Amino acid sequence: MKTQIRAVVLTVSDSASRGERVDASGPAVAEQLASIGAEIVAAEIIADERGAIAGRICHFADSGLADLIVTTGGTGFAPRDVTPEATRDAIEREAPGLAELMRAESLKITPLAALSRGVCGARGRTLILNLPGSVRGARENLSAVVRLLPHAISLLTETG
Amino acid sequence: MKTQIRAVVLTVSDSASRGERVDASGPAVAEQLASIGAEIVAAEIIADERGAIAGRICHFADSGLADLIVTTGGTGFAPRDVTPEATRDAIEREAPGLAELMRAESLKITPLAALSRGVCGARGRTLILNLPGSVRGARENLSAVVRLLPHAISLLTETG
Amino acid sequence: MKTQIRAVVLTVSDSASRGERVDASGPAVAEQLASIGAEIVAAEIIADERGAIAGRICHFADSGLADLIVTTGGTGFAPRDVTPEATRDAIEREAPGLAELMRAESLKITPLAALSRGVCGARGRTLILNLPGSVRGARENLSAVVRLLPHAISLLTETG
Repeated sequence: MKTQIRAVVLTVSDSASRGERVDASGPAVAEQLASIGAEIVAAEIIADERGAIAGRICHFADSGLADLIVTTGGTGFAPRDVTPEATRDAIEREAPGLAELMRAESLKITPLAALSRGVCGARGRTLILNLPGSVRGARENLSAVVRLLPHAISLLTETG
Repeated sequence: MKTQIRAVVLTVSDSASRGERVDASGPAVAEQLASIGAEIVAAEIIADERGAIAGRICHFADSGLADLIVTTGGTGFAPRDVTPEATRDAIEREAPGLAELMRAESLKITPLAALSRGVCGARGRTLILNLPGSVRGARENLSAVVRLLPHAISLLTETG
Repeated sequence: MKTQIRAVVLTVSDSASRGERVDASGPAVAEQLASIGAEIVAAEIIADERGAIAGRICHFADSGLADLIVTTGGTGFAPRDVTPEATRDAIEREAPGLAELMRAESLKITPLAALSRGVCGARGRTLILNLPGSVRGARENLSAVVRLLPHAISLLTETG
């Protein structure tokens, strides 16, 4: 029996969290995850605050509600971009190969891909991926790894 | 005078350590290292225990018995896969370029290469490399860097 | 208005710091940075000492004197090579994509590029890049990312 991936999408953006702009990246990521059969169990918009980001990742991982948490935003060089640092606070086992593959594939499209500081890894049995904040960057990065997710998650949630 | 590399192969596997399956990857790695002229000074099979893995790496590095320690296994996403974390506990200086090159070369063969979480680095004058647990994955990853090892190790063991 | 990048070049080398050899890499890096319009506000030669290297990076970042600090040397496997460790001590936000891109581009020229352990990242509003110590290696690595620097630094120094 093939089990469905339960996914959470976290949009990290000060302005979207204050309602000053519409979040387009979160819905784009959710749509892309739905296309591989994932169930979106939650979608939230949070400010660029390290503690808050790490807190929501830990909440969804530790509650057993999510197999996959995908963030979009906060991976760049602006002073408030701290999603990778928050993610490192939350993960227990880093998966550098996923972040390397996202950047390498995205670099084929734009040299700016090298400026994404995104981190990937696992907390307990939940996989966490950081994507850039732009709709285009988020889609490109997720495309690079999306076909690997079912296998990675089935390993993570293995019993024994 | 060209000095011979003294290498240790550590197979990290719960089932092989309990004798429930034959370790094919350790011997395959040893054979590949012998083909570049390395002397295999020890080969051990250990369980997927972070403390035990780090302990054996530190033992072989600190005793001055090994110039190179190659692990196979425990680099994936299963809950017990903790070889990279154990290796980070043991190394003092990370060598990300070796891990990146292993994954990049292995990606040319299979997209699953992105799921290897392997780490490389030095503890004192000993180089440590993590390889995946499958015979094929271990061979492919080691092939990507094997010709660099004599130079890397000659730098590490430099006096002065 | 386009603002000029204020850059510091730190040559990390025991022998050059003692005056036993002429530093060719520092001037080569400074020339390359000047060619993209950067102003070289300081160039120093320091020994391969972790505390001293981290101290100079923090000084130039925290004083607000530099938008960019580029080191050359100390990224390899020799026992005294500790520039990446010193840089990790100093940076607050790592930018792995820049280091990955430098190594990937340099690998197209020489397999030895995989032995560079260089780290990139930001401390406050200052970007720090590690380059290898050879003139050729330093130039090749910097070439891989130089066109991204104005954009990265404009993001880092954003107000608000």
